Amino acid sequence: MKNEIKVFAPATVSNVGCGFDIMGFAINKLGDEVKIKLISRPEIVIKSIKGDGNRLPLDPRKNTVSIAVSAMRKHLKQKDGLEINLYKKMPMGSGLGSSAASAVAGVFALNALLDNPLSNEDLLTFALEGEKITSGGIPHADNVAPCLYGGFVIVRSCNPLDVIKIPTPKKLYTTIIYPHVEVITADARRMLKKHIPLKKAVVQWGNVAGLVAGLMSENYNLIARSLHDEIIEPVRAKLIPGFHKMKETALNSGALGCSISGSGPSVFALSTSKETAEKVARSMKKVLSGMNVESSVYVSKINSRGPRVILR
Amino acid sequence: MKNEIKVFAPATVSNVGCGFDIMGFAINKLGDEVKIKLISRPEIVIKSIKGDGNRLPLDPRKNTVSIAVSAMRKHLKQKDGLEINLYKKMPMGSGLGSSAASAVAGVFALNALLDNPLSNEDLLTFALEGEKITSGGIPHADNVAPCLYGGFVIVRSCNPLDVIKIPTPKKLYTTIIYPHVEVITADARRMLKKHIPLKKAVVQWGNVAGLVAGLMSENYNLIARSLHDEIIEPVRAKLIPGFHKMKETALNSGALGCSISGSGPSVFALSTSKETAEKVARSMKKVLSGMNVESSVYVSKINSRGPRVILR
Repeated sequence: MKNEIKVFAPATVSNVGCGFDIMGFAINKLGDEVKIKLISRPEIVIKSIKGDGNRLPLDPRKNTVSIAVSAMRKHLKQKDGLEINLYKKMPMGSGLGSSAASAVAGVFALNALLDNPLSNEDLLTFALEGEKITSGGIPHADNVAPCLYGGFVIVRSCNPLDVIKIPTPKKLYTTIIYPHVEVITADARRMLKKHIPLKKAVVQWGNVAGLVAGLMSENYNLIARSLHDEIIEPVRAKLIPGFHKMKETALNSGALGCSISGSGPSVFALSTSKETAEKVARSMKKVLSGMNVESSVYVSKINSRGPRVILR
Repeated sequence: MKNEIKVFAPATVSNVGCGFDIMGFAINKLGDEVKIKLISRPEIVIKSIKGDGNRLPLDPRKNTVSIAVSAMRKHLKQKDGLEINLYKKMPMGSGLGSSAASAVAGVFALNALLDNPLSNEDLLTFALEGEKITSGGIPHADNVAPCLYGGFVIVRSCNPLDVIKIPTPKKLYTTIIYPHVEVITADARRMLKKHIPLKKAVVQWGNVAGLVAGLMSENYNLIARSLHDEIIEPVRAKLIPGFHKMKETALNSGALGCSISGSGPSVFALSTSKETAEKVARSMKKVLSGMNVESSVYVSKINSRGPRVILR
């Protein structure tokens, strides 16, 4: 058995418009890499954090990857210690599931290093342990689950945990734009009203039903008709510069739909070809440039695989 | 061309637990039969109403079947008049889509009699005209749509109308129990609070996503986990004698789930075999007998076909 492994885990878009707190999907390119090495000292050490993670603490009690891996190590009654190197290959605080990617990369890496003693269901629980420090309380699984399973995932319930992977429509591409502004997840959650009109809730769950049916039957027109969020997006859009203009231009450029990724500030759109997704990317970027807001733009297929071992 | 036709249209269960106002399915056996005859006088006459419909008005301006057929006749600029005989083969005011079955039977019959000039999408619009008098305002399509399309149907939106038929899981049987008490739909709607907690709404749309995914992937366990209504059922259950006991005994007898059909008073359960559905029927009936409440019980496969011509 080798004593070292390196794993990539993808960035994720949670909520997916109408599916607030219950849905997410994984993307390619962006994500976290975690290198784990078994060491004889029975402790967990974060040796380095590279990339956009230089703000993150090296204290293993405060980092999502080490917390997740530590919970797993205890469960497995593992005697070896672990040395962790974290390479953040995605922006933090962007609403793209950065902490989830670290935690998932960690537990997936350790599992692979130990010849896969645990199922994905188990790994999910440990990765969520890592998410607890960022969420406080019962963590949402709508980033961790798609990151670990790949593709589109429904989180029917967080307590008890009930995660369903649904098929990924083949043609889908996503455009992600990350405006370089800061949105604090906790603030984005506090903004939401605790009560919503029943009428709007019915519209929302009608769209959720349509979106799930559209994804599962590869009906792109139905996906487009269903990708609306009447409840969360109107509130959180205020935190994102140029949101409404970006959405308008994305739809005009041929996107099926467009909404906020997680609690923002990143915005995602879905399209049925790479060409359209790239056109959408250019048009959205132009809106932010016109407002003198810096941004990063990405075009990606849906990642239907989840994490992968990149070095062993 | 013959000048007379008789059509059966099925009873329907709307809401389906978590899918309040956006979902329904059709059942076998119960439903309405409509006989339509072309006549030379350019008018619509309701000649007879038989079965449980003796409370219904013969005035064609006040009956859902004649209103629906009349709207269709105008659209088609049809010169002949129509003579309608209505046979109600299901209880009225039972929460099983009685008025929808009449309207659908009517428009389906006229369309078949005229060699199908209109699509199902068109027929849906005219059948909904009939529902307007019972609903006041924009009518809900969650009975009319499954009645016309058969099987499980999502009504993503009523305005504009967007109806999606999803596949029917093969093993499903439904048990319907109709306690002989009256629930007025308008009252059942007025009872509902206009605002609901966001937290509960998220639980509900998580369950809607799970239910759609479960139905579409024929995952009976997932259907069972998702068939919960946290918002409407607790309020309306008060109108239905013995609801909680019936639900408890249905689940204990092996049902996947159990909730209110439409606005009640009928209660439905889903099971994966005829035997289980019949056991559920006996156990629910026993609850009502013990309370001295009369009831009718039905066991049926899901009707995945919709209306059918029975005499031509």
